[in-house]
Amino acid sequence: MGYSGGVKSVRIGLLGIGTVGRAVARALSERRDVLSRAAATPIVLQRAAVRDLSRDRGVDQALLTGDARSIVQADDVDVVIELMGGEEPARTLIAEALQRGKPVITANKRVLAWHGPQLAQIAAERGVELRFEAAVGGGIPLIAPLTDDLAANRVLELRAIINGTTNYILTRMAAGEKYDVALAQAQKLGYAEADPTDDVDAIDAADKLAILVRIAFGLSCTPGQIFRQGLRGLDPQDLAYGREMGYALKLLATARQTDGRVEARVHPTFLSAEHPLARVDGPRNAVHIVGDLSGPVMFGGLGAGGDATASAVLADVTHVARRLALGDPVQPPRPTPSAPQLLPMDEVRTRCYLRLAVDDVPGVFAQVTRVLAEHGIGLASVIQREPGTGPADVVLLTYAAPESALARAEAELAQLPCTRAVRARIRVEEARS
Amino acid sequence: MGYSGGVKSVRIGLLGIGTVGRAVARALSERRDVLSRAAATPIVLQRAAVRDLSRDRGVDQALLTGDARSIVQADDVDVVIELMGGEEPARTLIAEALQRGKPVITANKRVLAWHGPQLAQIAAERGVELRFEAAVGGGIPLIAPLTDDLAANRVLELRAIINGTTNYILTRMAAGEKYDVALAQAQKLGYAEADPTDDVDAIDAADKLAILVRIAFGLSCTPGQIFRQGLRGLDPQDLAYGREMGYALKLLATARQTDGRVEARVHPTFLSAEHPLARVDGPRNAVHIVGDLSGPVMFGGLGAGGDATASAVLADVTHVARRLALGDPVQPPRPTPSAPQLLPMDEVRTRCYLRLAVDDVPGVFAQVTRVLAEHGIGLASVIQREPGTGPADVVLLTYAAPESALARAEAELAQLPCTRAVRARIRVEEARS
Repeated sequence: MGYSGGVKSVRIGLLGIGTVGRAVARALSERRDVLSRAAATPIVLQRAAVRDLSRDRGVDQALLTGDARSIVQADDVDVVIELMGGEEPARTLIAEALQRGKPVITANKRVLAWHGPQLAQIAAERGVELRFEAAVGGGIPLIAPLTDDLAANRVLELRAIINGTTNYILTRMAAGEKYDVALAQAQKLGYAEADPTDDVDAIDAADKLAILVRIAFGLSCTPGQIFRQGLRGLDPQDLAYGREMGYALKLLATARQTDGRVEARVHPTFLSAEHPLARVDGPRNAVHIVGDLSGPVMFGGLGAGGDATASAVLADVTHVARRLALGDPVQPPRPTPSAPQLLPMDEVRTRCYLRLAVDDVPGVFAQVTRVLAEHGIGLASVIQREPGTGPADVVLLTYAAPESALARAEAELAQLPCTRAVRARIRVEEARS
Repeated sequence: MGYSGGVKSVRIGLLGIGTVGRAVARALSERRDVLSRAAATPIVLQRAAVRDLSRDRGVDQALLTGDARSIVQADDVDVVIELMGGEEPARTLIAEALQRGKPVITANKRVLAWHGPQLAQIAAERGVELRFEAAVGGGIPLIAPLTDDLAANRVLELRAIINGTTNYILTRMAAGEKYDVALAQAQKLGYAEADPTDDVDAIDAADKLAILVRIAFGLSCTPGQIFRQGLRGLDPQDLAYGREMGYALKLLATARQTDGRVEARVHPTFLSAEHPLARVDGPRNAVHIVGDLSGPVMFGGLGAGGDATASAVLADVTHVARRLALGDPVQPPRPTPSAPQLLPMDEVRTRCYLRLAVDDVPGVFAQVTRVLAEHGIGLASVIQREPGTGPADVVLLTYAAPESALARAEAELAQLPCTRAVRARIRVEEARS
């Protein structure tokens, strides 16, 4: 395909004018000079699709349509920006735009996580670009740096706080709030949706991790293959015990090379308080990458918000517009090396924090340590609290062991006569910093 | 000029095989597969220039020459990597390579800081690229993200720890070490040179800031125009007082928009302990940028070291090689908007930390506050220490005032009858975080 080059202006078709779409539309109008300079061509908002035509969007009514498909098909639209969110009709519209030879810029992590490879394939066949800097980490430059600036590296490890809602909730819980209270605060501040499922069950973070592992490790997997555990059931008591042991609790998306395979998982994680990610608080996002040449590199900033996300969308817009203006051919996608395999969660090795409520009877320790030993799990340290009126808390920190062994040990510990309940099992990372 | 396109391989001419050059040469040999994939073409080390041919560099002797200019002129060299460092002959060689239509990749901050605009001009005239990701922040992707990923933003503020040597020294001093001891430790660990002038007098940091402000603000200035103050004379006692007041001391490179002009300065700076840069310790580097859309964005990592710097050099190499392989034309440089002016240091407003050694006599406070008031400087807080055997320490924290007023007030305070000495004046930043 390729482009004719030397276009007079680049005409944008915008699908969806929510918070981010509105910020993009406003920037296209208000900072025309900055964008034209960066793109070496004027960029014009030509058409925009909304669901409800009656609401004021701060966009010239004459540009609006309720028919998103008409924008994808319009001859006077050079580039499509998809900001509708959700799987359909976004996926179909993106695919059709690419089929018609229109570059697409999207912030749609759900579509990219589940259908990214297929859409990239269409883009490659048609010789156009599919870009998505805004899909992970909002305003933080991340996709382009990973793709281009670390190109000489083999990525050894990637750890990310890529969901601001849950990071805010955990920041509140670290200050002693209960989960429900912290969630309500997040909702009040607009960080969490009325239905917080996508965030608190780590669905959003798993989507983003699926996108990141594709770029960083060449690992093609769907979010459904990624082990995922959210915040429900967490007790601020465990954050307090963790802090005593030198750990901060984060909902960490982790991926790393392990014996030629790649781990990919999202779960609450105790991270050394010395690790740079441990200090990323509130709704902020950050990604920590260890390249085999670069060493540790960290990118942080605002993971959400209209303007921050618009900054990333517009970086892609100027990139694509500049290419159209100069008539540069699209560089074919890099041939993928032999793709690595996903390490099954059962084989993933982590240290583990366990909190048991036990009856304060003689022989408890002997019983607990026997169970761990039977599963080949070494015990690194123990905290026992004097019981108040109820059962005593025993907190165990193990050495690294496979997930399968830890899960079996947890089940057996729950069955011990002295055990009232296993209150918590939280994975602990000794991450490179 | 432009390229013929479809080259079979890209042949590298390497100038200088020190720590970074050796890492680059090793990577070109050892990770040929990764680089070829990223560049869509094989990349070959064709020739390399060294000062002393007799030393083993881990590079095939047949490729080596003592005559750097012969590489720049060689017909079988497509791309020149300049890693000699220092102003000459590096500048002349880079200029000649560009004149001959060869893209140049360099890590040479000195040459770029002083001659960047002239070299960029030659590159633009010849239609070739001059790239320098490695010149600032070692292995941290920084130049490309600032140039491309934040292109839609007006940068409001940039603060950077861009000299690892001084950051290591300040980390030691925060732990109570005296400057001389901390410097000796840095030298022992290889973080500081035998002659540490470039680092401790902030010459290196000013060079890097000159490069950054050109990209981030479009401000063309030489390092000679940037206010610069290094670490000599700092007393760990002031770091201790600062910590009591909630501040960490960093050698901060600061640039920001101020009423249509741009401040650019490097000096020891008290920064709120809550600011993300306050926690960047040891030899690490980090840059914190506030864009008007993106909000705060931070990039951190290793600012030096052979492999980390090679990672950045090779990002540029793959970028240039890919362009050569695909026959993409070089995108003309972005037309600069009306260039902003540098705000003279006298007009820069900061808060200020002052420590005076005073005789413990009545009326000291009245004298000191009168001097400040006469220069329109508000007093935010005071710490006074009981004298031991010597004079008493009085620590003053002022509200923001122009540098000229602060300097005059300092001079007058030194002349007060009660003043034995002004022990320290350190600028304090209330940075956006």
